[in-house]
Parts: sequence; C-alpha cells; structure tokens
Amino acid sequence: MNKTITVIPGDGIGPEVIQSAIKVLDTVASNFNHQFKYQYAKLGGVAIDEDGTPLPQETVDLSKKSDGVLLGAVGGPKWDTLPGHMRPEKGLLGIRKALNLYANLRPVTAYKALIDASTLKREVVEDVDLMIVRELTGGLYFGEPSERRTEADGEAVVDTLYYKKSEIERIVRQAFELARLRRKKVTSVDKANVLESSRLWREVAEAIGKEYPDIELEHMLVDNAAMQLIRNPKQFDVVVTENMFGDILSDEASMLTGSLGMLPSASVSGDGPGLYEPIHGSAPDIAGQNKANPLATISSVAMLLRYSFEMIEEADAVDQAVTEVLEAGYRTGDIAQQGEQVLTTEEMTEKVIER
Amino acid sequence: MNKTITVIPGDGIGPEVIQSAIKVLDTVASNFNHQFKYQYAKLGGVAIDEDGTPLPQETVDLSKKSDGVLLGAVGGPKWDTLPGHMRPEKGLLGIRKALNLYANLRPVTAYKALIDASTLKREVVEDVDLMIVRELTGGLYFGEPSERRTEADGEAVVDTLYYKKSEIERIVRQAFELARLRRKKVTSVDKANVLESSRLWREVAEAIGKEYPDIELEHMLVDNAAMQLIRNPKQFDVVVTENMFGDILSDEASMLTGSLGMLPSASVSGDGPGLYEPIHGSAPDIAGQNKANPLATISSVAMLLRYSFEMIEEADAVDQAVTEVLEAGYRTGDIAQQGEQVLTTEEMTEKVIER
Ligand SMILES: CC(C)[C@H](C(=O)O)[C@@H](O)C(=O)O
Ligand SMILES: CC(C)[C@H](C(=O)O)[C@@H](O)C(=O)O
Repeated sequence: MNKTITVIPGDGIGPEVIQSAIKVLDTVASNFNHQFKYQYAKLGGVAIDEDGTPLPQETVDLSKKSDGVLLGAVGGPKWDTLPGHMRPEKGLLGIRKALNLYANLRPVTAYKALIDASTLKREVVEDVDLMIVRELTGGLYFGEPSERRTEADGEAVVDTLYYKKSEIERIVRQAFELARLRRKKVTSVDKANVLESSRLWREVAEAIGKEYPDIELEHMLVDNAAMQLIRNPKQFDVVVTENMFGDILSDEASMLTGSLGMLPSASVSGDGPGLYEPIHGSAPDIAGQNKANPLATISSVAMLLRYSFEMIEEADAVDQAVTEVLEAGYRTGDIAQQGEQVLTTEEMTEKVIER
Repeated sequence: MNKTITVIPGDGIGPEVIQSAIKVLDTVASNFNHQFKYQYAKLGGVAIDEDGTPLPQETVDLSKKSDGVLLGAVGGPKWDTLPGHMRPEKGLLGIRKALNLYANLRPVTAYKALIDASTLKREVVEDVDLMIVRELTGGLYFGEPSERRTEADGEAVVDTLYYKKSEIERIVRQAFELARLRRKKVTSVDKANVLESSRLWREVAEAIGKEYPDIELEHMLVDNAAMQLIRNPKQFDVVVTENMFGDILSDEASMLTGSLGMLPSASVSGDGPGLYEPIHGSAPDIAGQNKANPLATISSVAMLLRYSFEMIEEADAVDQAVTEVLEAGYRTGDIAQQGEQVLTTEEMTEKVIER
C-alpha cells in the first residue's frame, strides 16, 4: 500500500525518537512491501522559533492531506515564559482541535521485563492491560468563557466545562467499540454526584451501553477511580472519561507499570488522519545526546499501523519486536536497573529492527 | 475548658464510629479536666428520611452555635436514585458552604504497622507524611451556570469553574501557615498550561510565597502531580490545590499508605467552627455490625482537639494512643492481614481508651 505520513519531530528528544520511528517504518515498508512517503512539519517550540507561531497553518494543511501524523514531543523550558497563546502546548491543543482528534487512546500494558521498575508491588501490576479513552477536544480545555473578570468585590476568574451531547456520544461509542476488541468491559468515569455535565455523561453512557449488550458497563466516580487505579488496576479494561479527568487519570495510570518511557498514544478522529505520539515529554535535559528511549515512539508507530492503516500483521510485528528486545535484556538509561548495560537511542533502534 | 461539639452521626457506619469518638472525647475530658457538651444533629440520608431534606436548617444553626462539628459519614445506595438536590451529598456540600469551610486538610501519614497493606512498595511509602490542602467551597463544585442547554444543533451541558482571587489567596495562605509548622515546603498544583483559573492560581501562589521567605514553593501541573504521588510521594510536604483537583489527588494519596480506613480530615473556616470527619465513606455493607474501623474518626477527634480547641497535648495523646494500639497488633477487619486477630469497633475503641 501507499501511505503518506506527516512527521512532526518537535522539540527536545523529539527529533531523535522520530528518527528511530522512521527507521522502523522503513523496515516495515520493505518487509511488507509498502510505500511510506514522509512529509515533515513543525509544531511547538521549533515552530515558535522559526515561524513565530506554535502551530503554522502549513502543518495543519499537510496533516490533513496525509494518512496519519507521527509526533515526537513538544515544549521545553526555553518557551515556558512566553504568554499563553505563544506556548508550545497551544500548538498541541490547536492541532487536536484542527484535526478533530476527539479520542485519545492510551493503552497501559505491563511489560514483564520492566515490572520491577514500578513503585507498585509486582502482584498488583503484572498483567495490567487497560486502555484509557480520553475525550480530547472538549470540556474545560476549550470551553468559553475562559477569562479574568473585574467584579465589584475584586478580581475573579472563570473557565468553562462545556460538552455537546453529541460529543459525549461519539467518545463513549468509541470506547464501546474498543472494548469489543478487548475484554468487553467499559468503565465510564465521571463526577455525577456534583457536576451536571457528569450527569449527562452518565445518561449518555447508559443509553449507548444499551446498544452494546455484549459489553459490561460500569460507572465510577473520578475520585474513586483515582484510588482504584492504585488499589487494583487489573479490574479495568477500557476506561472512558472527559478531557481533564482523562489527563489526570491517564498520567496516573502511566506510572503503574514502571514503563512510562514505553507508552504510546493515539489521537483519532472520525474522519481525517489520526495523530500518534509517545506520552513522555520532550526531556530537554537529555536532548541531542543519543540517550532517549525510542520504544514509546516505536510503539506509537505500531498504533499508527494498526488504527490508521489497518495493517494488523505489521503492527503486531512491531509490538512483538519491542517485547523481544526487552526480554533479551536491552535497556536505555531510563529503564535500566543498576548494573544493566545501557544502549543508546540508535543501538536500541537497531535491536528492534533486527527483529 | 468548656466546649460544645455538634455531633452528626450520619448514615451507614457513621453512628458506630461516632459512638467510639464520643467515648474517646469523654476520656480526654476526664483525664484533662475539660467539659465537652454534645448536641446531636442530622445530615444526609437520615435527614432526608426524617426531615425530607439532606441539610435541615437546624443542623446549620446548631453547628454555627458550637465550637466544632464532628461528622461520621453520609450516603448509601438507598438514596442514590433520588434527584440531585435530594441526594445526601447535597447535605455535605451544603454544610461546607453554610459554615464557609473553605479549607479541607487531609493528612496522609504512613503507620509503620500497616505499611504492608499498601499496594506500593514499602521503601516508596514508609515515612510518607504529607498534607493535602484542598479548596472546598469554590471551583467547579459551586460555579454558575451549571445546567443543560438546548442549542440549535442539539442538547449541551455546562459547568463553571469560578474563583474569586480572594478565595485563592486565603487557601494558599492557609497552606503556607501549615507548612511553617511542618517541613516548610508547599507544592501548589494547577493546570496553568491550559486553564486561565490556574494561571491566576499560580500568580497568587507566587505572590503569597513572597510573604513566606522561609517556605519553599514549587508549582506542579496536576497530571504530573498524579504521577509524582505514585513515583515518589516522600517529595511532598504540603500540597495545595483547587476543589476538583484536590478531590482526585487526595483520594489517590489516601491509597498510598495502605491506611485508607485510618485517615482523618478537617474542614476549617476562617471564623466559625471547623468540621472533622474520617475520609472513608458510610460503608453500608457493614453498617450496624460492630465491624467498622473507628480509628479514622478517633484521629479526626485529634484534629478537632488540635485545630479547633488548640488542645495540643490532648491531641498528641489521642494520636499516640492510635499508633500504640496498631503497634501492639490490634486490628479491625479492614486492616487485618491473613491470620491476624480481628477486633470489633467497640473492642478497638476500648484499646485506644486504655492508653
Ligand atoms: C501539554 C498539555 C496541554 C497536554 C494536555 O493536558 O492535554 C498534556 O498533558 C497531554 O496529556 O497530552
Ligand atoms: C461526596 C462528594 C460530594 C465529596 C466531594 O467530592 O467533595 C467527597 O468525594 C469528598 O471528597 O468529600
């Protein structure tokens, strides 16, 4: 097959891990007889520096004209003191909105070889295999008004948590579809005892659940979910929740398995191309040193192949290669235990490609 | 000293653990030569059943006329299907607002004797000693509008995150005051890269930090805080954050030490009486069976003595007694490991009183 991929290296270690990902994509292309064409685009700090905006229009246009977008990482201390609309994060939020990437899928899987790096006990986290489905283009992140106010008795500030019912419906439906391919359980997380938006969320989840009689639906309050993720994470299969809750819970969940530097993510839309990125940040402290762990980005490539290109065999091959290099004992600095030999970004990438 | 305490047993195991707390208070009174007068009031499910409202005006009036309020627990499945304004939680939210309890203090301390009940590794959680200071009367919980809307393209819903600057100032100041009595570090948690309210929050924290040059101030994004609580909880001393973030993070933090059934909380106001309650729920499944763990409520009594009555010696004596019964190996069902002997609520209370 012929596919065009928009590649956004971004900031910090982004360019290095993206280079690794491209090598893996090239290997997949030659082994499975595909043609991947890459078009490079800018986002975040590098775009601020070169184009004076965190999200150049060209990046949006190129992305829309491609079959999938692969992103490294954005941000860094260099841009942290700029005003809100000129911050690298605005580029990320902007592209999510521009491509209508309403569903952020974050699988959390325990790699047996890394489990001892977790701060949780082995028996609690081994075999954890859950997927957080986070709404990504609504809620507090985009609601209006979001502003300061001068009132009679002083300054005040407001942000708005806004959802259309249809926005809730499509994300909840996405979760049920994913659960069908997994262990057939959806946990819908809300704060229905306090928020009106959560009460609508719960009603929608109930209604859509009726369309999926083969899937078990459970509701959980967000504070309880934050506890249960630590108490017994194996109880979860697919967890679906609104944008801000999803931001918090997915980062919490990413700590469970000791594999933070290992976790990929996919942000998908109903119609256009999806965006794939590692969940780790731009790690400016180790940028340019050939030290970064490329495996999360390589796993993001597997998600790109699986969800955007429907290349299941190819995706499985990439996932399998990652598991094998870990089991063979290869480590980058972030996941190495005392005494283990540490590979560079490039060496690690070679090990994956060999498989 | 003479003190009047409003006692709100509430629902589920509430009445049992409150009975234990009263016995402890009586013991403190006779050992230290104080007079405690108790006036009983209703809140939550029991108030709905008997008075048709989750928060009778009489409860507010009595509370205001006392020196401190001691609460058991509210809620249960019996009232879960009632409409929003008739839910037990409304009683809780209502009394917070009526008494202006803007600061919720949740200490998370590791009891050495219980550490193995944690799902986290011993070395990660032993010696954890942090205090979450949650804003309790603002933010998404109380902002207006909070409503459904019918729009041209369908149904929608909105909740509002609103803060006056003065509300942020007083809670942040509270956190600095507490840090001064502890390890002199404040972590202010926000989402300043997305929310306008968080940007104001961060500015206020910076400004107030200047008044406390002896206290270290650090800012942390809420998603990162959710990770760091699992990765390295010992880094925290006082954590201050807005209402919803605080709800999520404090429940997450409560799981760290394996002592969920052990943790107390205080909700304090600038002027009137504070409210003290265990953070565990009403546990309807074991209500009335003399099985509940009374220690969190007894620790809440210690907080009442310490923060509302300034009876430091008395508070220390109660805390000390709790630590000692745990070290002596006494356990209720919720904290017992396999093979350990299990005490009833009353027996456990006796053990504390003996000390
Ligand atoms: C950078 C930030 C705006 C972003 C978010 O909060 O969505 C990040 O935390 C994420 O989870 O992708
Ligand atoms: C019962 C509920 C409304 C309440 C809250 O969210 O504040 C509870 O979770 C708490 O933390 O005290």
